[in-house]
Amino acid sequence: MSIILGVDPGLNITGYGVIEVTTGMPRRVRLLEAGIVRSKSKELSKKIEEIFDGVTDVIGTFSPKVLALEEVYSHYKRPMTAVLMGHARGCICLAAAKSDIRVVSYAATKVKKLLTGNGRAGKEQIQRAIRLELNLDREPDPPDVADALAIALCHAYRSSLD
Amino acid sequence: MSIILGVDPGLNITGYGVIEVTTGMPRRVRLLEAGIVRSKSKELSKKIEEIFDGVTDVIGTFSPKVLALEEVYSHYKRPMTAVLMGHARGCICLAAAKSDIRVVSYAATKVKKLLTGNGRAGKEQIQRAIRLELNLDREPDPPDVADALAIALCHAYRSSLD
Repeated sequence: MSIILGVDPGLNITGYGVIEVTTGMPRRVRLLEAGIVRSKSKELSKKIEEIFDGVTDVIGTFSPKVLALEEVYSHYKRPMTAVLMGHARGCICLAAAKSDIRVVSYAATKVKKLLTGNGRAGKEQIQRAIRLELNLDREPDPPDVADALAIALCHAYRSSLD
Repeated sequence: MSIILGVDPGLNITGYGVIEVTTGMPRRVRLLEAGIVRSKSKELSKKIEEIFDGVTDVIGTFSPKVLALEEVYSHYKRPMTAVLMGHARGCICLAAAKSDIRVVSYAATKVKKLLTGNGRAGKEQIQRAIRLELNLDREPDPPDVADALAIALCHAYRSSLD
């Protein structure tokens, strides 16, 4: 068994999903917990602290072996938002480093393609795919949770898990 | 007396400068320490940890009242570099938040204009201005150190320091 934490960083809402996966084949995956860390402060440095503390807390509870994130990519529609997201992503990487957990990352298109067959799938498609994949009663909401689970599942299916 | 820590974030080299400033007028400024935090790891999360630890260390040594940074701006030549810089900047903000220090930020053009009269001054001009301003024997080098001191001086001259 291996525990994977997927995270979808955002300055206001950071989605996370924790799954347990069998290391043998075929892979079996079980949802342990999923949710969001909501940053309520107005000040940037306090927002970031809330994200860091929230992710550190999840790591402490589930002791995942790996933290999975979307890769940083080079074409952003809104450069300002991208830089601010970088602040959140940086603190999430730091939370992993401080707990001695490995960080892995996958291209967003790869994650979407794996789960839906379409590298440009929309948010609803991802939510639906996650519901089916994890046998959930309904779609994970907000979409940030589905995105976090998607990246965790991508690592579960694509890596050798060692 | 007030102590200000200026930081110029970078994934590989983060410049910092600590100055002491009189709260009365005219302001008198004295250099306490300046240098760089060099991130040697190859892994992004470890690099960020080195930056966080380095800045936390400087904060612990000098107990500054404020940490000053350049503002995040919206027009970057290289979006990828900007997002990665965001990772470093985020961890520096976190270091401040964890030590309960206020973070202030100033537009790069404002800092340059204040120190050289030119909002688009080059690195050498900033280095020269810092040497004169702080009565140093030579220009601070690498330029990241000068940039960090520039942002600290901007706060020293522009704020009410309360």
